[in-house]
Amino acid sequence: MKQFIYADNAATTKLDKTAFDAMIPWLTEEYGNASQLYTFARRPKKVLAEARQIIADAINASPEEIFFTSGGTESDNWAIKGAAFSDPLKRVTITSSIEHHAILKACAAIEELGYPVLYIPPDKNGVITSNRLKEIMTDNTHLVSIMLSNNEIGTIEPIQEMSSIVHGKGAIFHTDAVQAVGHIPIDVNNLGVDMLSASAHKFNGPKGIGFLFIRKGTELKPLNDGGAQEQGLRAGTENIAGIVGMATALKKNIEKIEENKRYVESLEQELLQGISSLDYIKNGSGNRIPGCISLSFKNADGEAIMHQMDLQGICISTGSACDSVDIKSTHVIQAIRVPEAYATGTVRITLNKDNTMEEVKKISTTLVQIINRLKTNDSIG
Amino acid sequence: MKQFIYADNAATTKLDKTAFDAMIPWLTEEYGNASQLYTFARRPKKVLAEARQIIADAINASPEEIFFTSGGTESDNWAIKGAAFSDPLKRVTITSSIEHHAILKACAAIEELGYPVLYIPPDKNGVITSNRLKEIMTDNTHLVSIMLSNNEIGTIEPIQEMSSIVHGKGAIFHTDAVQAVGHIPIDVNNLGVDMLSASAHKFNGPKGIGFLFIRKGTELKPLNDGGAQEQGLRAGTENIAGIVGMATALKKNIEKIEENKRYVESLEQELLQGISSLDYIKNGSGNRIPGCISLSFKNADGEAIMHQMDLQGICISTGSACDSVDIKSTHVIQAIRVPEAYATGTVRITLNKDNTMEEVKKISTTLVQIINRLKTNDSIG
Repeated sequence: MKQFIYADNAATTKLDKTAFDAMIPWLTEEYGNASQLYTFARRPKKVLAEARQIIADAINASPEEIFFTSGGTESDNWAIKGAAFSDPLKRVTITSSIEHHAILKACAAIEELGYPVLYIPPDKNGVITSNRLKEIMTDNTHLVSIMLSNNEIGTIEPIQEMSSIVHGKGAIFHTDAVQAVGHIPIDVNNLGVDMLSASAHKFNGPKGIGFLFIRKGTELKPLNDGGAQEQGLRAGTENIAGIVGMATALKKNIEKIEENKRYVESLEQELLQGISSLDYIKNGSGNRIPGCISLSFKNADGEAIMHQMDLQGICISTGSACDSVDIKSTHVIQAIRVPEAYATGTVRITLNKDNTMEEVKKISTTLVQIINRLKTNDSIG
Repeated sequence: MKQFIYADNAATTKLDKTAFDAMIPWLTEEYGNASQLYTFARRPKKVLAEARQIIADAINASPEEIFFTSGGTESDNWAIKGAAFSDPLKRVTITSSIEHHAILKACAAIEELGYPVLYIPPDKNGVITSNRLKEIMTDNTHLVSIMLSNNEIGTIEPIQEMSSIVHGKGAIFHTDAVQAVGHIPIDVNNLGVDMLSASAHKFNGPKGIGFLFIRKGTELKPLNDGGAQEQGLRAGTENIAGIVGMATALKKNIEKIEENKRYVESLEQELLQGISSLDYIKNGSGNRIPGCISLSFKNADGEAIMHQMDLQGICISTGSACDSVDIKSTHVIQAIRVPEAYATGTVRITLNKDNTMEEVKKISTTLVQIINRLKTNDSIG
């Protein structure tokens, strides 16, 4: 029996058992380097091609448009820096102020090197509107990068609308889909994106592996130069076990994507019903990734709630995992202008298909108890 | 029983069984994100610190000087690009013409962005001499990157001498030690390097993980910007399983490093004795990584030899794994000026502690048969 309740699935997910099993041969007997030419390299080469096909199929891309990376952060850095460095004119990169730090800090890095960056603020639901994008775009825009769904508040952005505006101006469009792949159906052609980032450990794959979709014809310098792997665009000996684990996990999630989505939505409903007695704001728009629930409780301390929940064996977070060191209120919560009385009381609960209804009931009753207790203590203090 | 003989250990090595076993918990039950603050993140956080200490101890560094990456290619790209981008004066980077492509192509990439690079040619043994370095260095040199040992011919470079010259001129020194770590004793303080790259799968660790040693005080921009992981210098959710596998494998190799070295040297001697009837040049200096054997056979075709060996169940290579797509004679073989009659007949046989004396005897007798047969066929043809 599980000793605790894990409700931080946006930070990372449990590796799928089938995916783990599929990885084992590539961590034991099948250790050949896929780039070599002898017989012992054939099986890794073959499984690499199969994994690429599975992933391409999952997002309606061609296999030669899938490039394996070490994860979402590398994919994001590659898209931002690779696009900038491929443009001798040093034209403008546009992004939003609620992107993951992998995008925001990559943008800050290219700015320091003389590539200008503009930031679009979201509306109060966390939506980057097409109108704001239209206002800011010029003929001097090179790349627009807007996330498919926000990692803290779950808001799904109007990517299709925006990519069409971007292409109309002759620019290229990247989306950080790290929190979306494996959770909602994704079709790179419907979305109209030129690049898309994903990370395996967000959809029950292993840590340390991800991919970047790069549409044929998109100009992009490598982030990792070197050997001829990945069509010469991403060097480094292929992490076959990781790639196989990622493809297996994605395939499995995609097969039941609608069923999982509905199930997680029912978990979310149950959770919200259970805490209806509390005074809180639910952050993010109506169109959200199922199970990514950002709640701002009035006159509360998100970090205290998180620690109290932990004492009860429940894992939730305050913001994104990568920020955990130094935050009171995250850049996302600030950008959507959550009222001050609520902002510091923000927690993120992220459910997925592995959570049970019973767990969710436990989460909501515990949350109610903790918040009421903390409030009482505050009044006494 | 093994179905084949693996003698391409410079391309990749078999994952150590103890290392694999050590990885399993982190691929199954212990999936917590090490950057989170709840109890479930404590064990990954702890094992991360332990792994960092093991790796630091293995090269006489401090744990806070070890930065986990996705492998040797990323470590090399980070060192070259991170150093260049941290220098607003765009001073000169110096490297050698026999570096791995991860260095050479990273250098080409920064050149395109306006950071000048100079290349030192080796002598005919593949040695980058300190005199050549002295001739080329000026006060305008920012970084010198010379590999610790060459991946094709095994030559160990005089790093200690060179790092002292480099520091005398106020520049910083990086070494690509991908082929050396775990095979020969390494002490970053004796070597006097400011940065050192390593890759786990070259020393019986898993693929997709490596590290960069960065001496305290060294100025370096991140290659992967984003979250606060690795002191904010290398973002991305930690690949705990990979890191644990790497540390376990390195520790095990280091424990018997002298014993393994002597054993592999005896294998090498046996091999060379077995092929003494053939007309060949053994490439590289006397001071080499044990077991990294580059042989250029007269009037032969390295690729044909490799394929014939494969048919006999023996894995060897022509050059480095990353180049396998498009080579006749590699940049290293060209740079050390192997005579034309021999250059195209080059193969690389890389032995390690897992090879047996029996295997080596089989390799040499098969090699003799194949080369004599290919020669006869040529005469007939």
